[in-house]
Amino acid sequence: MNRPQPVERMVEIVKKLPGVGPKMAERLSYHMLKMPQEEVDRFIYCIQNARQTMKCCSICCNLSEHDPCLICSDTTREQSIICVVETPQDLIAVSKVKDYKGLYFVLGGALSPLDAVGPDDIRIDKLIERLKSDNISEVIIATDTDSKGEITAVYLADIIKTLDIKVTRLGYGLPVGGDIEYADEVTISRAIAGRKEM
Amino acid sequence: MNRPQPVERMVEIVKKLPGVGPKMAERLSYHMLKMPQEEVDRFIYCIQNARQTMKCCSICCNLSEHDPCLICSDTTREQSIICVVETPQDLIAVSKVKDYKGLYFVLGGALSPLDAVGPDDIRIDKLIERLKSDNISEVIIATDTDSKGEITAVYLADIIKTLDIKVTRLGYGLPVGGDIEYADEVTISRAIAGRKEM
Repeated sequence: MNRPQPVERMVEIVKKLPGVGPKMAERLSYHMLKMPQEEVDRFIYCIQNARQTMKCCSICCNLSEHDPCLICSDTTREQSIICVVETPQDLIAVSKVKDYKGLYFVLGGALSPLDAVGPDDIRIDKLIERLKSDNISEVIIATDTDSKGEITAVYLADIIKTLDIKVTRLGYGLPVGGDIEYADEVTISRAIAGRKEM
Repeated sequence: MNRPQPVERMVEIVKKLPGVGPKMAERLSYHMLKMPQEEVDRFIYCIQNARQTMKCCSICCNLSEHDPCLICSDTTREQSIICVVETPQDLIAVSKVKDYKGLYFVLGGALSPLDAVGPDDIRIDKLIERLKSDNISEVIIATDTDSKGEITAVYLADIIKTLDIKVTRLGYGLPVGGDIEYADEVTISRAIAGRKEM
C-alpha cells in the first residue's frame, strides 16, 4: 500500500522546502494532519500575514514592514557607507554588531556559475545605480565566505573600484570562542596572514 | 535589529514543527516569504485538503479517504490476524511486505511513562474491544523496537494473552543489507539468540 493521494501530494510539496528530505517531509506532513485545527489555522495565517505585510525596501531591498525600511529612513546613520549582504538574514546578523552605523544593501543571493545564477539574477545593477546616485565613500562587502560569496565579492569589487569608491571585505580569521583544533586549514592560514601585534 | 514581527511570528510557529530547530525554522520561513504566490497557495491547499479528506478508519484507525479503509473492507484478506502498529506510517511500511495478508490496527502512539502517555492516551481499549468482538486468532505486535515500543508490546501482550489469543512480536536481528560493523551490541546479541541453522 502507498500513502493515500492527499497525503502523498502534501508530502511531495513539503519535500520541496529547503533542507527537507523525504523522511522529514513525511514526518512533517503526518504531524500537520494531526495538529489541532486552531494550530493549523494559525500556522497558515502566520505565513499569509508575513507574506502580505513584508515588503522589499525600495532602497536597500531588505524585507521590512515599511518602505523605505527603518534603517534607510534613519537619518542618524552614516549615509556614506553601505554594507552589502546576500540575504535579509545576513543583514540582521550584521546589524546586531553595534559598532556599524552605516547603511545596507541586500543582493538577494550570490553569483553561482554552476547553478546558472549570473549578475542579472541578483540585484547588482540596482546596487551600482545606487552607488552612482548616492554619495557613497565605502562599500563593505559582507557576502558569505563560501565560494559563491567569494566570487560575488570579487565581481562586485572590480565594478565598484571603477566608480572610485573604496571597497572592503570583512576580515578573515578564527571565529571568536572557537577551538583552533577544529578550525580548517584555510581559516588558520587566513588568520596567520591577518595576525595582529599584541 | 531583530526580525520584523510578522517574520518572527512565522519563525516561532514553524519552530514548533517536529525536528525543526531555530536555524531551520528561519530558513524555512524566509523561503516561504520568497515562494511564488501560486506555490504558497498550493502548499496551503495541500495541507487543508489532506486534513479535510483523510479520515480515521473506524475499524483499524488508519488514516484513509474511506471509512472503513480499503484494507478493512477487503474481504479477501485474512480476517483472523491483526498486525498492531504505532502510526499510519508504520502501517504503510508493513503493508509493503507482500507476504502479510492480514488486517491492521493503528494504536496512535506508544506508551511512554516519562512523557505521561498512559494506556488511555493510545487506542488500547479500542483494540481490546475489537479483539473481543471479532474472531481473531493471532495479534502480531509491530510497535517500534525502542523502549516505548517495547513497553507497549509487553503491556499489550499481557492483556491479549488473557483473551486466549496468540500474540507474536516481529523478530529481532540484523537489518538486511546492513554492515555488522555498525550494528549495536543489543541487536547483535538478539541476532545470535535468533540464529537459524543453514
